[in-house]
Amino acid sequence: MEKLLCGVDIGGTKLSVGLVQPDGRIVDKITVYDHVSKSEDMVVEQITRLVTQLISANRLNESDLQGIGVVFPGHVRYRDGVTITSSNLTGFKNYSLRQAVSTNFHIPVLLDNDANAQAFYEFRFGAGRGYETIIFLTVSTGIGAGIIINGKLFRGMTGTAGEFGHTIINPGNDLICTCGNDGCLMACACGLALPNIFKRKTEDGFRTSLPLPVDFDYSQVDGKMIREGLEIDDPLSKSIVLDCAGAIGTGIYNIFQIFNPPIIILGGGLLSWGEIFLNRIRSRFYELARDMIYDKIEIVKSEAGADAGLIGAAALLLE
Amino acid sequence: MEKLLCGVDIGGTKLSVGLVQPDGRIVDKITVYDHVSKSEDMVVEQITRLVTQLISANRLNESDLQGIGVVFPGHVRYRDGVTITSSNLTGFKNYSLRQAVSTNFHIPVLLDNDANAQAFYEFRFGAGRGYETIIFLTVSTGIGAGIIINGKLFRGMTGTAGEFGHTIINPGNDLICTCGNDGCLMACACGLALPNIFKRKTEDGFRTSLPLPVDFDYSQVDGKMIREGLEIDDPLSKSIVLDCAGAIGTGIYNIFQIFNPPIIILGGGLLSWGEIFLNRIRSRFYELARDMIYDKIEIVKSEAGADAGLIGAAALLLE
Repeated sequence: MEKLLCGVDIGGTKLSVGLVQPDGRIVDKITVYDHVSKSEDMVVEQITRLVTQLISANRLNESDLQGIGVVFPGHVRYRDGVTITSSNLTGFKNYSLRQAVSTNFHIPVLLDNDANAQAFYEFRFGAGRGYETIIFLTVSTGIGAGIIINGKLFRGMTGTAGEFGHTIINPGNDLICTCGNDGCLMACACGLALPNIFKRKTEDGFRTSLPLPVDFDYSQVDGKMIREGLEIDDPLSKSIVLDCAGAIGTGIYNIFQIFNPPIIILGGGLLSWGEIFLNRIRSRFYELARDMIYDKIEIVKSEAGADAGLIGAAALLLE
Repeated sequence: MEKLLCGVDIGGTKLSVGLVQPDGRIVDKITVYDHVSKSEDMVVEQITRLVTQLISANRLNESDLQGIGVVFPGHVRYRDGVTITSSNLTGFKNYSLRQAVSTNFHIPVLLDNDANAQAFYEFRFGAGRGYETIIFLTVSTGIGAGIIINGKLFRGMTGTAGEFGHTIINPGNDLICTCGNDGCLMACACGLALPNIFKRKTEDGFRTSLPLPVDFDYSQVDGKMIREGLEIDDPLSKSIVLDCAGAIGTGIYNIFQIFNPPIIILGGGLLSWGEIFLNRIRSRFYELARDMIYDKIEIVKSEAGADAGLIGAAALLLE
């Protein structure tokens, strides 16, 4: 029997640890929600405790595992196993996370970022099965991506390849990204951009039929609120969704011109905006690509559940 | 002794055929300038005649060659060896060029596009030696590129990967690319874009000190004219060069975010604009990238001569 894989998915709100079979099925998992305010060392201690707990609860030994795949919500130096930055967690600036976890175990430990793990999930078990090259783009609070070329993740020099969210696609429109630049894809279409976009549209005279709280301020605008707007046919929400989709469609078009991939897979929370969002992404793409498409390209929505990062983390041990 | 390589570089103005050593040195070559108006079949006949002529002039047999690498100035279906489109040559729409050349020889023939051959030249013999991953961008009449990942050209599904020139970086500025889209990199910074940019700047009130001919029309504006403008300190020419450099700098920044490569190599005719152009490309890149650079990235100018495409074509046989 092939050994089990252990995945650790450090998220911005939850931390999941799971035992995963090589076919992607989860054997057992534990999820906690109290890691965000912890120091780096305490997070490592927590991970160690949870992995150990999971091993013994399943009457296994450490040697029954092939290794531990840890994924992190931020930039990672892949070769060195060091976290660089994270907008979701405190600390973790140049922290040797792989080494720190490694010292508590005798099996291989690897560290990668969350979008890479999700991309690998899609490649191995999800919408990308059967393809050797896929681009996975997750549109959520921010925008992340994973590039798989000939069956392997392409990570670049440092390990930070795939930052499509920071590519400039529409400068000069006063939408500033968290990185400070004007006109990044992330400034035009992700959760972090919604307060800005909502504010600008309101100032441009758009009216919303959303019931705003008395103490409303723009920072409260998020993907969920816009989805609720769609449900009540709010023109402002609909306009935001179409604008974001147009920007993502442009991003997808750029990816198409650069990678000429057979498939682009879209994931992330904002996809819950539904068909109106996905349809406009696709139509924008085809408006731009027209007769430059020589072979069919698939633009599909991820069907992965909430455990894609965890399963992907574990599966990275098989890369 | 290792066998010689034969390269065929079909350009927009000249056609070169050469015998090349595996170390990149040219043994002998023939260049002609009368192929552009010829039909596909006549170009194939011409290539066949020139290769045969070169073989016998060097007292060789076909079997002394490893093969023939043909490069084409336009889109190519790599696996099928079929040309798709070219903006430089008439015909060649879905033409089985590899097969057509192949029937006249008994050695392997491959077909790729010119930017890929130049990128491979850089990787093997030029500014990219010692790197496993490089991005090569050529800024000339149009914009082409070659992506080398782990020592291999990445060509995508069809063979058209690397079209950074068609990525959208600045829409809504009325600069339309030859592809019909608004705000492509090629609409902002390449030879084909110069008439438009010159016209717009003139209409915006910019004055030129270039001595324009009596029958001047904007279609006459090209890279050479702008270079002459630089030499006489023409403010309009200088402004065009800085704008083009800004757009290329943005393109380079996007490449950096997507590929996180150790090196980006710039080639092509517009690089003859000199330091003012290259310096602004670099400064725009660093303005955008700021503290997001975690490892040193080289942005260098190709030192290749006019034979890079020919040598690269031949060297592709060694890929």
